[in-house]
Amino acid sequence: MRFFSDNAAPACPAVIEAIAKANRLDTAYDGDAWSLRLDDTFSDIFETRVTALWVSTGTAANCLALAALCPPHGAIVCHRDAHIENDECGAPAFYTHGAKLTLVDGPGAKLTPDAVAAACDRVRDDVHQVQPRALSITNATEYGLVYRAPEVAALGELARSRKLGFHMDGARFANALVTTGESPADATWRAGVDALSFGFVKNGGMNAEALIFFRPELAAETLYRRKRAGHLLSKGRYLAAQILAMLDGDLWLANARAANRAATNLAKAAGDRLVHPVEANELFVRVTADEAASLRGQGFDFYDWAPGEIRLVTSWDQDMGAVTKLTAAISAL
Amino acid sequence: MRFFSDNAAPACPAVIEAIAKANRLDTAYDGDAWSLRLDDTFSDIFETRVTALWVSTGTAANCLALAALCPPHGAIVCHRDAHIENDECGAPAFYTHGAKLTLVDGPGAKLTPDAVAAACDRVRDDVHQVQPRALSITNATEYGLVYRAPEVAALGELARSRKLGFHMDGARFANALVTTGESPADATWRAGVDALSFGFVKNGGMNAEALIFFRPELAAETLYRRKRAGHLLSKGRYLAAQILAMLDGDLWLANARAANRAATNLAKAAGDRLVHPVEANELFVRVTADEAASLRGQGFDFYDWAPGEIRLVTSWDQDMGAVTKLTAAISAL
Amino acid sequence: MRFFSDNAAPACPAVIEAIAKANRLDTAYDGDAWSLRLDDTFSDIFETRVTALWVSTGTAANCLALAALCPPHGAIVCHRDAHIENDECGAPAFYTHGAKLTLVDGPGAKLTPDAVAAACDRVRDDVHQVQPRALSITNATEYGLVYRAPEVAALGELARSRKLGFHMDGARFANALVTTGESPADATWRAGVDALSFGFVKNGGMNAEALIFFRPELAAETLYRRKRAGHLLSKGRYLAAQILAMLDGDLWLANARAANRAATNLAKAAGDRLVHPVEANELFVRVTADEAASLRGQGFDFYDWAPGEIRLVTSWDQDMGAVTKLTAAISAL
Amino acid sequence: MRFFSDNAAPACPAVIEAIAKANRLDTAYDGDAWSLRLDDTFSDIFETRVTALWVSTGTAANCLALAALCPPHGAIVCHRDAHIENDECGAPAFYTHGAKLTLVDGPGAKLTPDAVAAACDRVRDDVHQVQPRALSITNATEYGLVYRAPEVAALGELARSRKLGFHMDGARFANALVTTGESPADATWRAGVDALSFGFVKNGGMNAEALIFFRPELAAETLYRRKRAGHLLSKGRYLAAQILAMLDGDLWLANARAANRAATNLAKAAGDRLVHPVEANELFVRVTADEAASLRGQGFDFYDWAPGEIRLVTSWDQDMGAVTKLTAAISAL
Repeated sequence: MRFFSDNAAPACPAVIEAIAKANRLDTAYDGDAWSLRLDDTFSDIFETRVTALWVSTGTAANCLALAALCPPHGAIVCHRDAHIENDECGAPAFYTHGAKLTLVDGPGAKLTPDAVAAACDRVRDDVHQVQPRALSITNATEYGLVYRAPEVAALGELARSRKLGFHMDGARFANALVTTGESPADATWRAGVDALSFGFVKNGGMNAEALIFFRPELAAETLYRRKRAGHLLSKGRYLAAQILAMLDGDLWLANARAANRAATNLAKAAGDRLVHPVEANELFVRVTADEAASLRGQGFDFYDWAPGEIRLVTSWDQDMGAVTKLTAAISAL
Repeated sequence: MRFFSDNAAPACPAVIEAIAKANRLDTAYDGDAWSLRLDDTFSDIFETRVTALWVSTGTAANCLALAALCPPHGAIVCHRDAHIENDECGAPAFYTHGAKLTLVDGPGAKLTPDAVAAACDRVRDDVHQVQPRALSITNATEYGLVYRAPEVAALGELARSRKLGFHMDGARFANALVTTGESPADATWRAGVDALSFGFVKNGGMNAEALIFFRPELAAETLYRRKRAGHLLSKGRYLAAQILAMLDGDLWLANARAANRAATNLAKAAGDRLVHPVEANELFVRVTADEAASLRGQGFDFYDWAPGEIRLVTSWDQDMGAVTKLTAAISAL
Repeated sequence: MRFFSDNAAPACPAVIEAIAKANRLDTAYDGDAWSLRLDDTFSDIFETRVTALWVSTGTAANCLALAALCPPHGAIVCHRDAHIENDECGAPAFYTHGAKLTLVDGPGAKLTPDAVAAACDRVRDDVHQVQPRALSITNATEYGLVYRAPEVAALGELARSRKLGFHMDGARFANALVTTGESPADATWRAGVDALSFGFVKNGGMNAEALIFFRPELAAETLYRRKRAGHLLSKGRYLAAQILAMLDGDLWLANARAANRAATNLAKAAGDRLVHPVEANELFVRVTADEAASLRGQGFDFYDWAPGEIRLVTSWDQDMGAVTKLTAAISAL
Repeated sequence: MRFFSDNAAPACPAVIEAIAKANRLDTAYDGDAWSLRLDDTFSDIFETRVTALWVSTGTAANCLALAALCPPHGAIVCHRDAHIENDECGAPAFYTHGAKLTLVDGPGAKLTPDAVAAACDRVRDDVHQVQPRALSITNATEYGLVYRAPEVAALGELARSRKLGFHMDGARFANALVTTGESPADATWRAGVDALSFGFVKNGGMNAEALIFFRPELAAETLYRRKRAGHLLSKGRYLAAQILAMLDGDLWLANARAANRAATNLAKAAGDRLVHPVEANELFVRVTADEAASLRGQGFDFYDWAPGEIRLVTSWDQDMGAVTKLTAAISAL
């Protein structure tokens, strides 16, 4: 019974079907019929004109966005536990040609305007120090917390006043939105976000993510950067088709709802053991080594996050029987 | 009737089936059952121990190889018409952190040891000039010519004597092999090749290419570079499954044979109009503008390569009826 | 008797004196009294508001300029024999993070608008090819030829129409100006130049060059790039003092006049042996190996440029007695 | 009365004289008589065969060393207050092509083996995280503390066991050595250091620093990197001559002794106000805003380090009269 990672889940059937349907002759790269529909489709979703680029990984989406927002000699302010800091092997430095990540603390991997402002204020305004040029947040965060639109907007306001480009890593953007019920527009560009990594893979996609630019001039240069990074697939239609299939009929929201629901059920059982509030599809649970062993002995698979703490992740296809069993097992600890 | 590009062709059915079969829970990244089989499978094919990494594009494969073989302050000797020079938007410079491409001429985009040696000799051996550190050839070449193993070996010998890493861009490696009938081993590492971009996408794959290292120590650092470039897909099993499906039963060779056969048929009709010998699945044909228009009027789609010259590319799924019609149309010009 | 390189010459006495005078307490980096005078002094010389940065080498000046004008995924059009291509160990790629040098031919290392336009036209306007973004010329050229202001202006017009940043490598800018008698302004920004590497070292300086930006917004980001490249010296006053000393009383022009005069004298003797017209302080002379040996036997030191061709360079301090002797020796060949 | 920065001090007379003496014709770049003596001279000092390269700044020395020791996808462990982190505008990332600085805390900007080991242990050994590949310490530290040879050796042992390259930023290496009385060899390579930035500028030099490699194979590639960074001056003899002048008769040690002595005198007056022990030429002193204003009113110039804390730096040429006055003024607070 798997609670290890949403990356371990399969792709959802609609994605596989879309790939099969897209398996015919078409123009190479991103000139095919599916790719050409992305801008319009995402513009509808975001209620404004956007430019949307497919890529194969969240790391590529994040780092192409950061390269568009921060010069090589600038700094990107982010949380100390951000994926771009901890889980991308320095990809931001590769794509930006050496920009620095300025790390900020905060509970649940969330940033606050005060903490970001303080980090910026610590930098002397001279050429000896790397100047902040961008801000990156993750929504839902690495600990499964969700920024509400007003929280994003407060950070967006700070970014604007400090002349920081504003990126949102939305590897679990769907999981965040189904929690808040906010519109994609309110959660992003209306709150000042310049570029969004719109995740699909953790939510039932196979290998397609979307990079959304709310300022189209940023996208123009990024087309070259994507090619230059080897991320312009020659048969791009299979990526575009996946994305369109997941947007169709709001499958992306349905998938996220399913994952979140499973997490919510588990959260009730975990109660005081929870390290963070559960607002998306991740749970961080305090268990002793013996308890962890006991759970494993009952067939549950999960990640040892830290001494005395495990991580449970639910997926779009989470087996609710397994959830029920795990709920019982946790309650019985 | 399509003769435009092998990138426009669909993926072959075995690839789509393999993806569907791989659509189940497994370890993320490259820890899944399919990915773990790659090293052994390719080691069998190459009759030596190799390390094989999947990536999504030929550009990524080429440039990860070059980054492993050439320092930022070195030069990569290649043909002036090489894909890495003309069609990758500077990706080699991005991945190598600024290495230079030293361009060499030669008919049919083929390099000879003499031409490579001359290019190296033109570089003064001092710190003011970028020193050659790697050699890259494409097999089959960008003009559809094929290096025979002894030709590769002569270049390999030169590379060894000049201390150049040796890379082969095998976007159409299968098309080359079915022409020569040589073994994969003879065509590569026995001839001195250090790293091979083993292409699948142009040959019926969807979005998986293999990067083969014949010197495993090069692969170790490349694992970090792949991640850092955003090319470590979180659900890598779909790439590995494609590759295994194409290797199974030598489908990769069968596909290439089909494409080459179509090209050979067309070549007979083109006769003296051919700019280069036809040894793989590409034809470069001299036609006037009127003739090109006439062919297009009959429903044939192709690329205008240069004034008075068109390019025809055949694919693994080339419709032989269309080939017959085009043969007749060319003969009738 | 030295005709090997203007880099071998000593610094002129005024430079050494200026360094000694500057040897007192002052603010570190570029906050000292000398550095603060550079913008105004160069603005007077160029009859417009400029920003001037000192650096220690021409390579640093060139590459900081190119990094300000060309993105990592762009190309810089330059002559095949340009210093940035041949003599800087790939520094342009290091500073620009991988921009490409697109090489153009032309007699005497001079570029023409037609040749530059043709090079640009060869690039397909798509993301697969590196797009031209900057143009760099050297004045005087690597073969000692001089661009007249109207020639620069024709290139500047082309650059503007093609949206190319325009850089001039003026390692021998003084030598060019004393030949044409043009004003610094006419030779640069009035002809469309955006950034100039204003050379002092080959002209009697010790280790200070100036990078002049005619578009101050380019300079702002370059201040960070200079620091980041380790080129913001902590005691910058010694560089600024050198530059001011050479500008004072037009010493820079007097030095260049002396060097050019020596070259002109030699040119008369060389006559038909000259490979290029002599317009600055370099001569390329056809001599047989025996003749070269004979000249060396008489005590003349010079560079073997190519088989059958030697290079003679004269300096600000050229001993006119040696010039007379070499004139006679060449005539006697 | 200046206690602001040792960068504000002039160059010592021997340096100016050496420059004047070197002002004659010689081979360009680093082929001159002075540059050619560096390897031997430093090899004598270090009692082993070393390779020594001049550069113009400590930033260049540090970053060339780091680029030789750490790949683009690696991390350099250093103190949170290290110069490479705080005062070089991201130059390490520029030179290493994006390596990460992993920050470690510790009193007085000193690192301990335990703290370094803990930082390494926090990194998961997989491709998702940037792996530690180098260690960099500063001696004397940014807070004026000195590592003793056994402390360096303990870090060197850790570096060896963890396969980390080991760099020492010796901007104030002389100040450290005169405090410990240790030999240069004991303080560096015998303690496991691979590369040393040997500072001269803060100690009476004008614009020459030395980069010392204790593993000559590292130097070979660095020669290209230096040129590529624009740090191979065309008249390098003026840098080499400065360095030789300061090494001659142990002037470098005499200068450092003078600076340290002034600091020691001040330290006695500062007593309990000292934030850190005074072991080199820097003092960090707790004073109220009113007290700072009072000192400034008496003509003393210094840096406001933090609220309630000022930094005093003494130089090779520190006026002992001013020191006496400041001693009295501090005692009178």
